[in-house]
Amino acid sequence: MTAEILSTGDEVLLGDLVDTNSAFLCSRLREMGIRVSQITVKGDEVDGVCDAVQAISRRAALCLVTGGLGPTQDDVTALACAKAQGESLVLNPSALASMKTYFDRRGFELTPDNEKQAWLPAAAIVLENTHGTAPGFAFQLNQCWFFCMPGVPSEMKQMMEACVVPQVQTIQGTRTRLRIRRLTVFGLHESKVGALLASFNDQFPGIRLGFRASFPTIEVKLVCDAGMDEKATETVLARAGQWVVQQLGSKVVSHTGLSLEAEVGKLLASEGQTLAVAESCTGGLISHLITQVPGSSDYFLLSAVTYANSAKIRVLGVRPDTLETFGAVHETTALEMAEGARRVAGSDWAVSTTGIAGPGGGPTSKNVGTVCIGVAGPGGVAVSRKFEFKFDDREKNKKIFAAMALELLRRYLTEKKSV
Amino acid sequence: MTAEILSTGDEVLLGDLVDTNSAFLCSRLREMGIRVSQITVKGDEVDGVCDAVQAISRRAALCLVTGGLGPTQDDVTALACAKAQGESLVLNPSALASMKTYFDRRGFELTPDNEKQAWLPAAAIVLENTHGTAPGFAFQLNQCWFFCMPGVPSEMKQMMEACVVPQVQTIQGTRTRLRIRRLTVFGLHESKVGALLASFNDQFPGIRLGFRASFPTIEVKLVCDAGMDEKATETVLARAGQWVVQQLGSKVVSHTGLSLEAEVGKLLASEGQTLAVAESCTGGLISHLITQVPGSSDYFLLSAVTYANSAKIRVLGVRPDTLETFGAVHETTALEMAEGARRVAGSDWAVSTTGIAGPGGGPTSKNVGTVCIGVAGPGGVAVSRKFEFKFDDREKNKKIFAAMALELLRRYLTEKKSV
Repeated sequence: MTAEILSTGDEVLLGDLVDTNSAFLCSRLREMGIRVSQITVKGDEVDGVCDAVQAISRRAALCLVTGGLGPTQDDVTALACAKAQGESLVLNPSALASMKTYFDRRGFELTPDNEKQAWLPAAAIVLENTHGTAPGFAFQLNQCWFFCMPGVPSEMKQMMEACVVPQVQTIQGTRTRLRIRRLTVFGLHESKVGALLASFNDQFPGIRLGFRASFPTIEVKLVCDAGMDEKATETVLARAGQWVVQQLGSKVVSHTGLSLEAEVGKLLASEGQTLAVAESCTGGLISHLITQVPGSSDYFLLSAVTYANSAKIRVLGVRPDTLETFGAVHETTALEMAEGARRVAGSDWAVSTTGIAGPGGGPTSKNVGTVCIGVAGPGGVAVSRKFEFKFDDREKNKKIFAAMALELLRRYLTEKKSV
Repeated sequence: MTAEILSTGDEVLLGDLVDTNSAFLCSRLREMGIRVSQITVKGDEVDGVCDAVQAISRRAALCLVTGGLGPTQDDVTALACAKAQGESLVLNPSALASMKTYFDRRGFELTPDNEKQAWLPAAAIVLENTHGTAPGFAFQLNQCWFFCMPGVPSEMKQMMEACVVPQVQTIQGTRTRLRIRRLTVFGLHESKVGALLASFNDQFPGIRLGFRASFPTIEVKLVCDAGMDEKATETVLARAGQWVVQQLGSKVVSHTGLSLEAEVGKLLASEGQTLAVAESCTGGLISHLITQVPGSSDYFLLSAVTYANSAKIRVLGVRPDTLETFGAVHETTALEMAEGARRVAGSDWAVSTTGIAGPGGGPTSKNVGTVCIGVAGPGGVAVSRKFEFKFDDREKNKKIFAAMALELLRRYLTEKKSV
């Protein structure tokens, strides 16, 4: 099946927004064995989108469209699709009902502006949006099926899984079930992961290997069509997973595709232990990541984001002497921060970060990328280490510092378990 | 001038790589007053790229092409462009010389594989690559100028600045520039913003109105081609901005398009004041947002992410009585948290959150979406308020709780200034 993606939105063409939706959809379609032959990005203009829809309808059998379903004037996807079909917009009762359900549940009133979102091409089939107000819709033009989804990534992903994937599978004919195995890798560049797994296809010809980099971790994905024998499929996938772990060694931080923070949470929860965090340069990111995991309140007690030295002293009990002698970015400071957080929170474990994320974030710019991480835990665990990363970028540094701290903690949690 | 972008590479269509090059080029062209009307992404196949080049040559006056210039078999841009022009590849002596210079300077030897990169369409003009091995090239087809650059972002950006921008300016002749004005809105749904600004186009026909929702805030963008009279353009844009502020009132949280956290930071920095945060349900997100702003170390002292009640008591000095009588999610608790953070950090201001982000995050699920926010500051500011949001989603709740806390703080900072 030939598939294309049509992404709409002035913000993409103005360079304000990177189109991550298309990468997600390409990756998701590949898992279903469908290859995308072209991505087209158009602005919020009826004629431009209409032309693109007509051109794609002559080339492809499937087209996933994102964006332009909102209530404002610059949301033109429905109108453009109607025009491409030589039809007009009609008020779609199921779309309106679906929106009413969404609004009622939240105690909002449907405004006339929102109602605009229920005006769809006459022949459209409604796709329900359970995560937002804009209903999606599907239609067929010149043998090509179009599925129009919202541009907001969370809404798009939900609609893709719940509504579009099943219908595409029906169109595909084969209602095969895919088996997927995920592993999370940290500490290797994507090209290095690719090189280390270069002989995968020879070893496991029936399994598709995919990578998704989500800085600073990489998801390695093994995808396989489950034939009649689901058990045999699982066995082959398990063997392939083991092979990947052999090649990548300790860089595999989760054998089940969990994020570092979820893996750390799982390890803590399984032992009934608790965690405190002391952050400086990561500025609350570790805490934010940990608390994104539902159930984290069972093991997460405290994060003290002590940006100022005075806060390190007052809240965590870091000794003024230490800060004066070694400065804020030092192993000794990191260790005292971790020990302080553990003591103050009364937790089993604590992890700390102090470093320079840059730009403008530290006393000298030449040390941007330096971070000291401390870990304190039961059985006398009290360690700290210095790392140097090569990024100039504040956001990247915060992310890799946070991941490194979680990874160091994970190693101690795993070792402790294996003792 | 109508411009398009053609991005090539299987890795983009497979979903392994997000196409950030196109966003950079769109943004760079916008700075030059050139609007991109379409982005096309094609895989590494000669016919596909050739078709795209021919189609674009009939629509646009300028096309920036990235990727496919490497030494391997799947690098097909030169061949596809030659085919589109009905020409063949020839060994280009300036391209070869440019590559030899690059290799010599690094003490490498030119291999036959690399030499392939100097075979370019007969009529091509070479674009030097000072940051890598692949030379770029330019050619004209059907009135459209094509500039082919490498896919590696650092090489592409260098070539864009050094070679492409000057040539595009020459082609452009006139050097119009776009003027853009941004405003940040919080507390209104996108549809409501659209409705309130519905008559904008009648009022200001020369200005394009755009919205970008980045939950929970919305950026309102006013875009205008600066004609000969740049000052007149600025005056009209300023008037349009004022009109928008009149329609949306206090929902405009930044008149210059800053994020809530950057606006709060600006207000604090301008007064030389400091901030501490006490977070429960937001789990470090407020702190993470504040520290994303470069320079935040000047005013941000501490965030205590006190997830556990014990941490609220031990770190912030919340009274056990208060927690027992009212529970963790209550105005009194929020206020004691804010006052505690201000006292512990020795800051001028403090803001706190305690609420239920769900799912699984609270004692009862029916209160998901409830948050209490406290603000403590100079001159006896000591307030707290309860808000109820209607989202089921943990991430959305964390985001809107954090934004509401920053917004409440912003109002007090603004009021104080205006006194």
